[in-house]
Amino acid sequence: MTLDPTALPADLAAAAAEVEAYLATWLDRRPLPENLRSAIAHVLLGGGKRVRPYLTLRACAAVGGDAKRAMAAAAAMEMVHTFSLVHDDLPAMDDAPLRRGRPTLHVRDSEAMALLAGDALLSLAFELLADRIDSGELSGSLCGELAAATNDMIAGQVYDTLPDFPPDTPPMARLETIHRNKTGALIRCACRMGAICGDASADSLASITAYAEAVGLMFQVVDDLLDVTQTTEQLGKVADRDADHGKLTYPALIGLEASRAEINRQAQTALDALAPLGPPGDPLRRLCGWLAVRTR
Amino acid sequence: MTLDPTALPADLAAAAAEVEAYLATWLDRRPLPENLRSAIAHVLLGGGKRVRPYLTLRACAAVGGDAKRAMAAAAAMEMVHTFSLVHDDLPAMDDAPLRRGRPTLHVRDSEAMALLAGDALLSLAFELLADRIDSGELSGSLCGELAAATNDMIAGQVYDTLPDFPPDTPPMARLETIHRNKTGALIRCACRMGAICGDASADSLASITAYAEAVGLMFQVVDDLLDVTQTTEQLGKVADRDADHGKLTYPALIGLEASRAEINRQAQTALDALAPLGPPGDPLRRLCGWLAVRTR
Repeated sequence: MTLDPTALPADLAAAAAEVEAYLATWLDRRPLPENLRSAIAHVLLGGGKRVRPYLTLRACAAVGGDAKRAMAAAAAMEMVHTFSLVHDDLPAMDDAPLRRGRPTLHVRDSEAMALLAGDALLSLAFELLADRIDSGELSGSLCGELAAATNDMIAGQVYDTLPDFPPDTPPMARLETIHRNKTGALIRCACRMGAICGDASADSLASITAYAEAVGLMFQVVDDLLDVTQTTEQLGKVADRDADHGKLTYPALIGLEASRAEINRQAQTALDALAPLGPPGDPLRRLCGWLAVRTR
Repeated sequence: MTLDPTALPADLAAAAAEVEAYLATWLDRRPLPENLRSAIAHVLLGGGKRVRPYLTLRACAAVGGDAKRAMAAAAAMEMVHTFSLVHDDLPAMDDAPLRRGRPTLHVRDSEAMALLAGDALLSLAFELLADRIDSGELSGSLCGELAAATNDMIAGQVYDTLPDFPPDTPPMARLETIHRNKTGALIRCACRMGAICGDASADSLASITAYAEAVGLMFQVVDDLLDVTQTTEQLGKVADRDADHGKLTYPALIGLEASRAEINRQAQTALDALAPLGPPGDPLRRLCGWLAVRTR
């Protein structure tokens, strides 16, 4: 399969709009102080590609389920992703002024509001799962997947920003630990929650999980690469922050060319994993191809 | 019933030790970066009265359940309470140097670590519920209770620290909204989760909920009162911070004597609510009496 950027899933924008509408409706109904609601809406409904909820919806369909059954899980996934962005952007972390081309929440409102809105987004994700999923059994299982992945993601942030590895840990092992947790865990969870909502067989869940793990690793290598090759304007956030902070990244560690080769290798692994699912896996295949070559 | 401080529940310290041991064992088994594990242990295993998990365990017994069945919920409750303390103490919020007589986490480690450890405590609470509770149905229901209460608590923090009430809201209505959310929601949730773990009937759950709502309101009035009447040394945290920040409190609004009367009124409401439960409710009755007169 050729990795072609024109193979962008045709339904990505429509799915993003559906997820945004679902989130807006749910947020509207939830009693909250109006300034907190406005802060959450600013970050949650501010556009974005919605790659993670797309993975949830399409993983559900790929295992033969009705994607509608995965909408609550997709929305919860986007809330947790947004929580992580809001807290990562705080002055004590990345101190980022821009996100998706708009002022970050602590710049728009205050540091206190960004802290509390992030906290609320995280717990609202679990509330949404409990509120919108009829089966207590399914909701409990999804809460478990989401909580474990969130903790792995937070662990990844600690490995990345407050590293505490044994001194003899090779740089590549450190980098893989960071990526597997920081980006990989949530992408893996997005796919698994979708498959679980679609009542996946054990084999199909394993296929989806293997796909997700490869895509997750690939995603972060692409992100590292974009950060050194794109301008701030192209990215909609301040570029080259990783180099500023002297962080461990793929391009810094193995160079641009080897990073590109790693992306292709992971993309192939992801596609191989999907083979048993047949045509229902096509949207996930196209997304993988596009993620491998995306420019922002 | 006389409200007598000597009626401190005899089993409070033992229950606290049991909860602490349970939390320590679970935390030990969960793979985490060692510096994150140490940060979490510093705040989670640093003593404290463990009033909320005690409420969970004793509410379970009060409705006829085996308190052991409520241990995971009690532990999750303490994690969410601790998350809220860690984030409340941050420089962007209360900027508190001390908690339970020890340095706060952002002072001991860093602001970034306090942010991330708080995030982890919140999501670990949900992971623990999913991990340790056999029934998916029960775990889903507890996740829903805990998530909703956490969001109410966060809303309470926003009402308290970033108030955005309509200008004609009377001060007492503001104060009650703050208290019901900020302190009340979690105390209510602690009791309800225990009762749910004990398979409470609808009537028993209603009794426990009414008890919890009165105790929650009383708890915060006592806290307000202690803050103006106790020294820093007695409290183990810096006293009179509320007055420093010009916050709305019961003593500031209605005076010391009326605040004490309000405490007695809420205590009586709580005891009345427990009447239908009979002797199994005794530990909750004693706790209510002690909370009404506690000095720290």
